[in-house]
Amino acid sequence: MPIPSHTYASREIDAFLGAVQFDAQGLVPAIAQQHDTGEILMMAWMDREAVRASLTEGRVCYWSRSRAKLWRKGETSGQVQLLRELRLDCDGDAVLLLVDQQGVACHTGRRSCFFRAWREGEWAVVAEPQISPEILYPQEAER
Amino acid sequence: MPIPSHTYASREIDAFLGAVQFDAQGLVPAIAQQHDTGEILMMAWMDREAVRASLTEGRVCYWSRSRAKLWRKGETSGQVQLLRELRLDCDGDAVLLLVDQQGVACHTGRRSCFFRAWREGEWAVVAEPQISPEILYPQEAER
Repeated sequence: MPIPSHTYASREIDAFLGAVQFDAQGLVPAIAQQHDTGEILMMAWMDREAVRASLTEGRVCYWSRSRAKLWRKGETSGQVQLLRELRLDCDGDAVLLLVDQQGVACHTGRRSCFFRAWREGEWAVVAEPQISPEILYPQEAER
Repeated sequence: MPIPSHTYASREIDAFLGAVQFDAQGLVPAIAQQHDTGEILMMAWMDREAVRASLTEGRVCYWSRSRAKLWRKGETSGQVQLLRELRLDCDGDAVLLLVDQQGVACHTGRRSCFFRAWREGEWAVVAEPQISPEILYPQEAER
């Protein structure tokens, strides 16, 4: 079931890409879920190159909209996401990534980016940082 | 922790809306997760009205991009999503909905829309329909 460490052939990845409905900007939303606990870690965007890089490298790459470039998750912080399985929804316009998150997913140092919950009319913080952002990004900021 | 059946005051919902970064089309991606099992059910989009309707009605409403109108999930099929908690990510540009899915989430009759997995170079169907789409939609098609 997990994606092995071997790389996929380019032809196979092209077949995959044909099933994905990228939007007008060439992007598809991607949800990252910890494969064994079910925890939702984050949501980001992938372009064709990010999908190809993720499948060939076995670690998740996204398209950074803020930096307008390929984003190898963890390239600065070391908090990489090993790709265990890639799933596609019924319409082909959303991707679910089953991953093995190394460390934390959120740039705030929290395990998940979804740490705010709407409770009794206000935002409650439901998770605390496990590591300081200053330790994660000693020289630069990464999202 | 679950959102009670009472409705929120308009002022509270406005405060909520102010924290959400809607995109240029006025939409935010929303992930629906079964609250107790962690299963990812679907991903769709919400506009301000859909967020407001979900919080006031206690059931999930989306914005249907294909039909260009408010979409009360389950209004045709009866497969509603009761809202248990709404979470927001660090950037405010993605929403996680913890729901209690009644029946199935996918218009194909499957529990989850993410029923295709990329395995060994091809798409594998990893879940079967639990109910026939013809039973779900005897008169019309709903996404």
